[in-house]
Amino acid sequence: MSHGIVRHNPGPSLCRIVEYNGVVHIAGTTADNKSAGCREQTAEVLKKIDSSLAAAGTDKSRILSSNVWVADIREKDQMDAAWRAWVDPDNKPVRACVEARLATPDTRVEIMVTAAK
Amino acid sequence: MSHGIVRHNPGPSLCRIVEYNGVVHIAGTTADNKSAGCREQTAEVLKKIDSSLAAAGTDKSRILSSNVWVADIREKDQMDAAWRAWVDPDNKPVRACVEARLATPDTRVEIMVTAAK
Amino acid sequence: MSHGIVRHNPGPSLCRIVEYNGVVHIAGTTADNKSAGCREQTAEVLKKIDSSLAAAGTDKSRILSSNVWVADIREKDQMDAAWRAWVDPDNKPVRACVEARLATPDTRVEIMVTAAK
Repeated sequence: MSHGIVRHNPGPSLCRIVEYNGVVHIAGTTADNKSAGCREQTAEVLKKIDSSLAAAGTDKSRILSSNVWVADIREKDQMDAAWRAWVDPDNKPVRACVEARLATPDTRVEIMVTAAK
Repeated sequence: MSHGIVRHNPGPSLCRIVEYNGVVHIAGTTADNKSAGCREQTAEVLKKIDSSLAAAGTDKSRILSSNVWVADIREKDQMDAAWRAWVDPDNKPVRACVEARLATPDTRVEIMVTAAK
Repeated sequence: MSHGIVRHNPGPSLCRIVEYNGVVHIAGTTADNKSAGCREQTAEVLKKIDSSLAAAGTDKSRILSSNVWVADIREKDQMDAAWRAWVDPDNKPVRACVEARLATPDTRVEIMVTAAK
């Protein structure tokens, strides 16, 4: 609608993906399998991010920046194990990872990224 | 001053609005009425964001990305009620919402957005 | 590798700096001297950010946006004292500052910025 902005997957509060001026913004993404641990939830989140990137015509090799929130900072290593198994070794983004209580008590990780198209 | 960057409302630490290359960045915004609950504080914050967007020559239909911090994640629904009453239904941004202790104990919500001009 | 994206200082999980389309993203930065207080850690972080900006061919007068996490929000004033002694008074970015537990218990502050080239 708005000139030059492409929005995908609108929900009641937000869109999953917004594109503008060659940059793709992906919403804070969490896992569906809330019974999984932090590592498994991270792997699921990263798969979802792959899908969102593909929907916008880009991929993980073009991620610019990422924000990671873990529900317990002592689980950062679990998140990082899944992250390192996934990230393009030749094209790592910048990242900040801090602790935050997330939408539900069993949500262990939330990740937001921006990527170039 | 710096080539191509427009800065509005400088305070002692930060500017409220910075424009560059067609993208408007708005600082983390909180409510003045600290005695209000999370829903009311969110409504006030969103009014302030409307004003900031207008000052930069844009509006909420062109918001790209948002970060929301609530002081108590159990109040996320209150924030979201005010958000949904406000957000342009045809032009929702991406968003992440996590819990964080904010500048003062009675600050219930802080919101940061980027928008296209 | 990826068209138009320049990445500096890759580590096992992330790059310290990513440039794209005239915007420089700098990773969440923390101090090496973990025995220092919040003010001193902030001053060290800001020095590191100066170095990262220089490596990307820009400087603090061109910072657009910043995210600050302090381990204890009651130490925000300490962070802000170091910030105000450092920030270009004519070119302040937008900023949000919230509390978050960081990678180690003695990490008092983490800062992430974006800048124009």
